[in-house]
Amino acid sequence: MKKIDGYVTAPKGFVAAGVKSGIKKSGKEDVAVILSQVPAAVGAVFTQNMMASPSVLVSKEIAKNDYIRAIVVNAGNANACTGDQGIKDANMMAELTAKAVGSNKEEVLVCSTGVIGHFLPMDKIENGINAAVKALSVEGGESAAEAIQTTDTFVKKNAYEFELSGKTVTIAGIAKGSGMIHPNMATMLTFITTDAAVEPSLLKKMTKYVADRSFNMVVVDGDTSTNDTMIVMANGQAQNSLIDSENHPDYQTFLQAFLTISQDLAKLIARDGEGATKFLAVNVTGANDFVEAKAVAMAIAKSPLVKTAFFGHDPNWGRIVCAAGYSGVNFLPEKMSVALNNVTIFKNGMSIKADEKQLQDVMEQKDIEVQVTLGQGEAEATVWTCDFSYDYVKINAEYHT
Amino acid sequence: MKKIDGYVTAPKGFVAAGVKSGIKKSGKEDVAVILSQVPAAVGAVFTQNMMASPSVLVSKEIAKNDYIRAIVVNAGNANACTGDQGIKDANMMAELTAKAVGSNKEEVLVCSTGVIGHFLPMDKIENGINAAVKALSVEGGESAAEAIQTTDTFVKKNAYEFELSGKTVTIAGIAKGSGMIHPNMATMLTFITTDAAVEPSLLKKMTKYVADRSFNMVVVDGDTSTNDTMIVMANGQAQNSLIDSENHPDYQTFLQAFLTISQDLAKLIARDGEGATKFLAVNVTGANDFVEAKAVAMAIAKSPLVKTAFFGHDPNWGRIVCAAGYSGVNFLPEKMSVALNNVTIFKNGMSIKADEKQLQDVMEQKDIEVQVTLGQGEAEATVWTCDFSYDYVKINAEYHT
Repeated sequence: MKKIDGYVTAPKGFVAAGVKSGIKKSGKEDVAVILSQVPAAVGAVFTQNMMASPSVLVSKEIAKNDYIRAIVVNAGNANACTGDQGIKDANMMAELTAKAVGSNKEEVLVCSTGVIGHFLPMDKIENGINAAVKALSVEGGESAAEAIQTTDTFVKKNAYEFELSGKTVTIAGIAKGSGMIHPNMATMLTFITTDAAVEPSLLKKMTKYVADRSFNMVVVDGDTSTNDTMIVMANGQAQNSLIDSENHPDYQTFLQAFLTISQDLAKLIARDGEGATKFLAVNVTGANDFVEAKAVAMAIAKSPLVKTAFFGHDPNWGRIVCAAGYSGVNFLPEKMSVALNNVTIFKNGMSIKADEKQLQDVMEQKDIEVQVTLGQGEAEATVWTCDFSYDYVKINAEYHT
Repeated sequence: MKKIDGYVTAPKGFVAAGVKSGIKKSGKEDVAVILSQVPAAVGAVFTQNMMASPSVLVSKEIAKNDYIRAIVVNAGNANACTGDQGIKDANMMAELTAKAVGSNKEEVLVCSTGVIGHFLPMDKIENGINAAVKALSVEGGESAAEAIQTTDTFVKKNAYEFELSGKTVTIAGIAKGSGMIHPNMATMLTFITTDAAVEPSLLKKMTKYVADRSFNMVVVDGDTSTNDTMIVMANGQAQNSLIDSENHPDYQTFLQAFLTISQDLAKLIARDGEGATKFLAVNVTGANDFVEAKAVAMAIAKSPLVKTAFFGHDPNWGRIVCAAGYSGVNFLPEKMSVALNNVTIFKNGMSIKADEKQLQDVMEQKDIEVQVTLGQGEAEATVWTCDFSYDYVKINAEYHT
């Protein structure tokens, strides 16, 4: 698998564009369209928040179809808490896009991110969609990646090339992360494109599996937004033998590529967490099963006490073991150990004196792996997060209504 | 029910003392003993953290007995992650106290709070216990309240007098809250004394009920410590008719007093949350049952986004409804409303324009009630918390190993 430079237009048969429609106060790109020139098998997962945005509700229905052609996204307005008008507006976004690209409405997914509680400015959206569709191109992948951002501090993208039954296949993705703009909350959006040929119902199943092992393993502050969405489109233009079952010889290779790019993007989201000064990978091994491993890793990754300790360069095993202890998972304290970048600080339930210089070196790193072993079984899980700094409070407290 | 001035020695037949034994680096009081002059019925609840301190493990066993005589507490060292030695030390604390007060070891509960991962300095503890027992007095309630503190910014106490079948009964309590001292975590300790006569197994049942509606409704940062403990002692010296069943005519009166003092202390703990500038009561009404009401209130009260918004004086209903949305509870967004100190900001699933001046006034208050109604049923719950400030990060990040 070879990493290549590129956006969602790197796989064959995809074009995209991001344009400035005036929704964002900053005047930056805020409407994006991603189009597959032929129908693409679709997989998608959406936020489970009860207050899900009408854009999510509309897309959720459309994503039940086997194939779609396009994704339309607006940033600057989340179309959340907008009731019936919000549903009407999201449907209109799909319709306008379908008309402009020459597909039907049931082939267009809609995403929104930004402030909540405001109706979409449909005149601006309409102009934006028309302009974006006119600008669609392979080069447009970059402007599309920019248009989906809110307070992200860098563009999140990745692309890989690999072989499936002698054909070169490309998979690419863009994401926006856990920046949030007032007065609302983080939204995570991820769009993955591939020219692999994959049977739609299998792709849907793989999407759920991959999301659970990538985007669902990221935590910045524990808040789940009203708009989180992950969409994958597979248009078959690589002409590989259709992957139609888990027993297909190419199934594992494709799944691995899908998982890798999703984990790459998920880690970039954690790295760009608001106010983050450190990237933390919390790896829990020796658990009875994945669910327990994840529960322990999540409790540690979500703990404000653990996160502020890392911000303060403090190798505070006490807060780590305490968080594991309240995770709801049963384990024997006397079998538990904790290391930071392979420097053990807690072993078999007791503190252990680490070399002070070595430990100080670890705490100065920007990337730290928190390695917890429970000594119970063989399962493991990794959750990605960031530290908790003054800037997190600043970003989230200082912007007033 | 009349509020009176007093500590745990306000009820008849209790004496206490707190002394300086040298465990705390600050040199302040750090060993406390609370003694009932006659055996007292006991109820207790303990942390469910898997890494529970040996002091908790030892007390948990002893608290299964019907009656105890004393509680011994040390602050400055949590006796957590100390393995077999920790168990030996906690047992020794009970033994030393029992010997000094002339009871047996099975009548003494042990609590520890402070740094974790260090063995108790048993020579200092022994001297401290002997000195505290010598100093036991009715006046000693105040020094006992001081001795159980770590980084609390004020002493938490309360006392009430009320009538049960013609007799004057007193209930009093002290607590320590969510200050935490490096390198470890918050501990919540609460000791309640009463001279009411209550049958032990009924008292144990009431203790669980009361804890679930008071201390278990407080959240500062979502971290559950290794040492949390609530103990109630009822010594019968008020000579009221023994409350021995839920049908006893005095049962409801006593339960109400027990609940009130526990909620008072719980609120004081939230008010003294690290770095807190505001006290928040999150009240959820219109839920299907208490469990759902509590789940929604907890999700809101734990959300760093909500808490930083209040610190920033921002009436951010978006973050509040979003947190409710991911609480795991099913509800209809279009029936949900949110008010802050009775100023409605969100009604039936949509934003509502509140009077700006009125809303600004609310946000300047030190005490804010976040009033959420789900419109589903009749149940309600209130969770107490505080905002999330720069000082929370400072307190928890800046103290280095």
